[in-house]
Amino acid sequence: MEVEWQQLKAHELNELVAQNAAVIVPLASIEQHGPHLPTMTDTKIGHEVAYRAAQKAHAVRPVIVTPVVWSGLSEHHMTFGGTITIEPDTFIALVSDIVTAITRHGFKNILLSNSHGGNKVAMQHIADRLSMRLDATIVATSYISEAEAAIAALLDDQPGIHHACEAETSMMMAMAPDLVDEAILGDIATPIDRPFLTAGKASYRWRPFTEVTQNGLLGNPRSANADKGEALLEAASDALAALLTDDGLWTR
Amino acid sequence: MEVEWQQLKAHELNELVAQNAAVIVPLASIEQHGPHLPTMTDTKIGHEVAYRAAQKAHAVRPVIVTPVVWSGLSEHHMTFGGTITIEPDTFIALVSDIVTAITRHGFKNILLSNSHGGNKVAMQHIADRLSMRLDATIVATSYISEAEAAIAALLDDQPGIHHACEAETSMMMAMAPDLVDEAILGDIATPIDRPFLTAGKASYRWRPFTEVTQNGLLGNPRSANADKGEALLEAASDALAALLTDDGLWTR
Amino acid sequence: MEVEWQQLKAHELNELVAQNAAVIVPLASIEQHGPHLPTMTDTKIGHEVAYRAAQKAHAVRPVIVTPVVWSGLSEHHMTFGGTITIEPDTFIALVSDIVTAITRHGFKNILLSNSHGGNKVAMQHIADRLSMRLDATIVATSYISEAEAAIAALLDDQPGIHHACEAETSMMMAMAPDLVDEAILGDIATPIDRPFLTAGKASYRWRPFTEVTQNGLLGNPRSANADKGEALLEAASDALAALLTDDGLWTR
Amino acid sequence: MEVEWQQLKAHELNELVAQNAAVIVPLASIEQHGPHLPTMTDTKIGHEVAYRAAQKAHAVRPVIVTPVVWSGLSEHHMTFGGTITIEPDTFIALVSDIVTAITRHGFKNILLSNSHGGNKVAMQHIADRLSMRLDATIVATSYISEAEAAIAALLDDQPGIHHACEAETSMMMAMAPDLVDEAILGDIATPIDRPFLTAGKASYRWRPFTEVTQNGLLGNPRSANADKGEALLEAASDALAALLTDDGLWTR
Amino acid sequence: MEVEWQQLKAHELNELVAQNAAVIVPLASIEQHGPHLPTMTDTKIGHEVAYRAAQKAHAVRPVIVTPVVWSGLSEHHMTFGGTITIEPDTFIALVSDIVTAITRHGFKNILLSNSHGGNKVAMQHIADRLSMRLDATIVATSYISEAEAAIAALLDDQPGIHHACEAETSMMMAMAPDLVDEAILGDIATPIDRPFLTAGKASYRWRPFTEVTQNGLLGNPRSANADKGEALLEAASDALAALLTDDGLWTR
Amino acid sequence: MEVEWQQLKAHELNELVAQNAAVIVPLASIEQHGPHLPTMTDTKIGHEVAYRAAQKAHAVRPVIVTPVVWSGLSEHHMTFGGTITIEPDTFIALVSDIVTAITRHGFKNILLSNSHGGNKVAMQHIADRLSMRLDATIVATSYISEAEAAIAALLDDQPGIHHACEAETSMMMAMAPDLVDEAILGDIATPIDRPFLTAGKASYRWRPFTEVTQNGLLGNPRSANADKGEALLEAASDALAALLTDDGLWTR
Repeated sequence: MEVEWQQLKAHELNELVAQNAAVIVPLASIEQHGPHLPTMTDTKIGHEVAYRAAQKAHAVRPVIVTPVVWSGLSEHHMTFGGTITIEPDTFIALVSDIVTAITRHGFKNILLSNSHGGNKVAMQHIADRLSMRLDATIVATSYISEAEAAIAALLDDQPGIHHACEAETSMMMAMAPDLVDEAILGDIATPIDRPFLTAGKASYRWRPFTEVTQNGLLGNPRSANADKGEALLEAASDALAALLTDDGLWTR
Repeated sequence: MEVEWQQLKAHELNELVAQNAAVIVPLASIEQHGPHLPTMTDTKIGHEVAYRAAQKAHAVRPVIVTPVVWSGLSEHHMTFGGTITIEPDTFIALVSDIVTAITRHGFKNILLSNSHGGNKVAMQHIADRLSMRLDATIVATSYISEAEAAIAALLDDQPGIHHACEAETSMMMAMAPDLVDEAILGDIATPIDRPFLTAGKASYRWRPFTEVTQNGLLGNPRSANADKGEALLEAASDALAALLTDDGLWTR
Repeated sequence: MEVEWQQLKAHELNELVAQNAAVIVPLASIEQHGPHLPTMTDTKIGHEVAYRAAQKAHAVRPVIVTPVVWSGLSEHHMTFGGTITIEPDTFIALVSDIVTAITRHGFKNILLSNSHGGNKVAMQHIADRLSMRLDATIVATSYISEAEAAIAALLDDQPGIHHACEAETSMMMAMAPDLVDEAILGDIATPIDRPFLTAGKASYRWRPFTEVTQNGLLGNPRSANADKGEALLEAASDALAALLTDDGLWTR
Repeated sequence: MEVEWQQLKAHELNELVAQNAAVIVPLASIEQHGPHLPTMTDTKIGHEVAYRAAQKAHAVRPVIVTPVVWSGLSEHHMTFGGTITIEPDTFIALVSDIVTAITRHGFKNILLSNSHGGNKVAMQHIADRLSMRLDATIVATSYISEAEAAIAALLDDQPGIHHACEAETSMMMAMAPDLVDEAILGDIATPIDRPFLTAGKASYRWRPFTEVTQNGLLGNPRSANADKGEALLEAASDALAALLTDDGLWTR
Repeated sequence: MEVEWQQLKAHELNELVAQNAAVIVPLASIEQHGPHLPTMTDTKIGHEVAYRAAQKAHAVRPVIVTPVVWSGLSEHHMTFGGTITIEPDTFIALVSDIVTAITRHGFKNILLSNSHGGNKVAMQHIADRLSMRLDATIVATSYISEAEAAIAALLDDQPGIHHACEAETSMMMAMAPDLVDEAILGDIATPIDRPFLTAGKASYRWRPFTEVTQNGLLGNPRSANADKGEALLEAASDALAALLTDDGLWTR
Repeated sequence: MEVEWQQLKAHELNELVAQNAAVIVPLASIEQHGPHLPTMTDTKIGHEVAYRAAQKAHAVRPVIVTPVVWSGLSEHHMTFGGTITIEPDTFIALVSDIVTAITRHGFKNILLSNSHGGNKVAMQHIADRLSMRLDATIVATSYISEAEAAIAALLDDQPGIHHACEAETSMMMAMAPDLVDEAILGDIATPIDRPFLTAGKASYRWRPFTEVTQNGLLGNPRSANADKGEALLEAASDALAALLTDDGLWTR
């Protein structure tokens, strides 16, 4: 089954409206990912997780995936170079317009699927705004949180996903090994014991990424490998597929 | 020690800049709080928690509290009446302008202290935006999360804070018993087993409050009392005082 | 009779809609008020005048008062410290949103009641905008103008209200004597013969407050006292009560 | 002396910057003016008053006049037809941009000169905003107010200027008699005893013009004539010339 | 037949709505036009071309002309002085509001008629936006392009219209000879062989006017004369009249 | 040589800044493309043309390509389904932010490369705005225009590129034959003799696509084939490569 909006023809998409298909809008970023990973890392992972989840959910309900919103909120990475950030107001308008256009065609169930930490707060804010305005169910997820336990079980040197780390490096090795500089994986770990976006027990602050790392990395990729990456992509897409097939959630 | 900005004279505030005082900006709402509580509930609690926290932190560093931003994001309560909501863009601009004015005077350490669930996402978004623009440390907190464990330990019929519930009713009984309709506390419980703003394991959606309650209440106030309210206010302000005196957090 | 929105429960406010109650939205500021008065001066006076007016009007029609919009337009006071100003666009959006929310519940008669000179022009602009959009009667007043003659008759050293002057100091002595530094009242007068916001005979210009005063004061508080303050508050609230009970004005 | 910006060449305007010339920006409207006057009335009067004032002020300081901002705030006239109103936000942006461009060339003294009641509040708001941002003196005037006493002395059937009335009709008869339908002047008076934009003693509200007139007129043009119009234009321009040559006002 | 909106009375304009009149909105600029022409050049030409076109089209359908939008996009001329540019967003809002007000009265056919190169792209963008929103036919034209061939045939030293050139100088000599400095026409030519807003074969870039001229001129006015100007105005207005009477175009 | 920004690591992009590389930002759309082509058509073609152009230009100067901005201006296609349009203001903000971020890293030469007709006017408007603000050379191109003559020479049944036509179908057959429904190519031609976005000789109007086609197609794909598509892609990328290596154009 074809699940990518961009590969479908208009009349095929109109038929999917009639079937009450859900639509995933992946939100990601183009940004620095340390010395060993390309700037597409979050975009590539975000596409893959959404794509697999759509296919897995297929037996229960049709799901399609739009192209990735690759222009995200990455001001905190700008000083490292290679990063294309946009203004928060622009991000909010962009995602809001995309979802609005989709619902104008009759789609009622939208999953915002984020793969970049910097987008998370704005994404939830977008879900607030759109839910007040549109007659549609808008759910906002990050695979990082939704599959947190399953991911943790697969990692050796970190408790969860950080940045350009064991997890992200593994997934890139599974999908695009030629773009990973494997030679340096053992030499670039950075400590993850400094709080980044958290404060106190459950509070929040934003900081430039330079506050927590010198080389653009947060975590330890030394034990990254393609098999682990494949398992992570499966765990993440399983979690999203569970969301997509949760009958209590999609009531429209 | 006087900790309220509005009760201080301009020259006293200028002296507090010289002492590198922290400033709490409480964010709340005027909104329906069931049949038994006044619309000021979140505003009254937010002021009290911030006020007590500022006084407790005093031994370590001077802290002052601005008037409460009582105009919050409460679209989900509008259908019940009594609610004054503002647009998300307006809320973002308002809090941003207030913090910007404060930092123009030289204050460097700002705690956004929220007491209304509907503001939480926007508040974190504001922290993102302001932190990118201002030379100041902006921390965003909600006492509901920051003091979660201590609060849970004090409650009998709920695991945490909901809306117009055991906890909020108790705190209002401690502060303004005349405004609480105690006669009906035993008859107005609503179940809290339906997910409200959450989806899946760790995802997010926004819904009108009518999806989870018929009477504007979420939780069970039957065992609310003033002593419990006093203990809750102490627990909440203890948590904020701990944040305010955390040396690792306020580096400016 | 309870006249404060925030002290009322949602069902009580819904009943007031059915009675076609008028709603006062007080607009004020937190800003420097010379060496002897706290920054809450305009907010405290604005609340008191609106509160008394609502109670006086009660015999004729129900009137309620929202919390004070304490974040006003005070750029001209910023250099003195202690002042929290917001952008004109934000002020317009904030007051517009508050009034819009109020009218969504069914209230039809709104009195914007200003106690800070810097808000006056923007308030009238807001009245223009809202009146074009909403099915409601919006009246914009400043007690300073509406009660001008009665106030003038009560003052000894000034012809009308200025800033941190005989009148404002007197009203604060009536309401919050502990916050007034009475020891210096005889030593801080500034001349009021220099035009501030006026030009020519009936034209307008905006200037920083430093153009007309060195100490943040405009006027002469030497003869301020609590009795005079009480009389001023009565005169101001009488004028607003007359507006609120003017049948020709509130036709909805 | 040529005083119209648009008739001057760029190098002539650059010389006027060097002479510290003042610049008048006339603000007006294209809108219905009853059954007897063309829609250009406020624009034509606004231009003439500014033009004469600039020439009169010439002996003291050079003054130039930009083309009239003919797109004003006339929502209250829309239902009569013939009216081109713009949004308040657009008007604010337009006048702000024009003044900003003028000051970028080095002009320091700007007179906003309004001839349309609907613009007055927004004009003052613009003066606030621009004065906070620009290193220039911005004065906002309406000839209707600035020359109020002199105008009153010239009128027979009204105490001051209203709309398409004795005064405006007279001025149009002096400038463009062919565009005035004189045959009906005796038959179209409307009473001016109903308050329009005022409320109480000194308060404000906005209303559609249909609240005070059926035919688009407010006042009584029966005794309008060209001589009276000429005298009114002289009185109005004298008042503006006095403003332009007031040394205490233009300190830059 | 009177074709100027501003010279008409409201009831005359209401009758023109009933006749389904078309409305021309001229878009121009006040900007430097070399050492020999006044800053009104584009505004004067734009008005004249629209006025003549409206009169010529009259036999086929009634056409009226609003006052010229004289505040255009001229950032590229600012460094020469004498130029009043506004922000692109303001220009878009201004023209959109004007057209919206016109269509609210019932006019269905709008011709945006531009006489200033810097407005062209924004004008087309406005046509896009308005056509999506309004039930009206919006056509955007520049006489420079629409009459290109006819104009080229009339010029001796240039292949088409540039800036303050043979063509514009001739038209100003036909309309306002006193404002043209004829003595220097033979000495101020600038080469037109450097691409200005074009790149490659059919691409676009924006540049300050200083990139292509030292004296603010682009082209060669040595052979400009009033007869040529008259012929150019006729050619330009013929082209617009043809547009206005094209039955296939105005289908509403 | 790797030319895709997203496949490069941050340190590689920093080196490309040092080499003064040009950056192509492709602008496209996801929209209906008739019954035989997928919604990705403009996005796929836009990427391919930019990619080939970057590689061809490589011998002269380094060029990199960002991911395609796939969210474009396609309101005129919405009624056919399958189309994701965004608001004009959002598109302007999005592209402006992307280019601004790129230039913050030090890149000085930016080519906006459009493959969707609906974006053209807004793209040029963006080039205006950005060129006024940024110290960078911004060129805006559409391969459709820049390679117009070369493309015309390759087509059999159309004089130039239309929509889902001989040209676009051929290019998709060269790149993604599985996504083209070849069986119906002979049966879906629509006439191209009705003017779409043009009016008169050289004027402009916007219309919904339903005005010119019933099936979403404009043109005739009957003779489309992969060889022709390959030749078209070469012609288009040759034209862009010529722009990228034009020394007179990129002066920074």
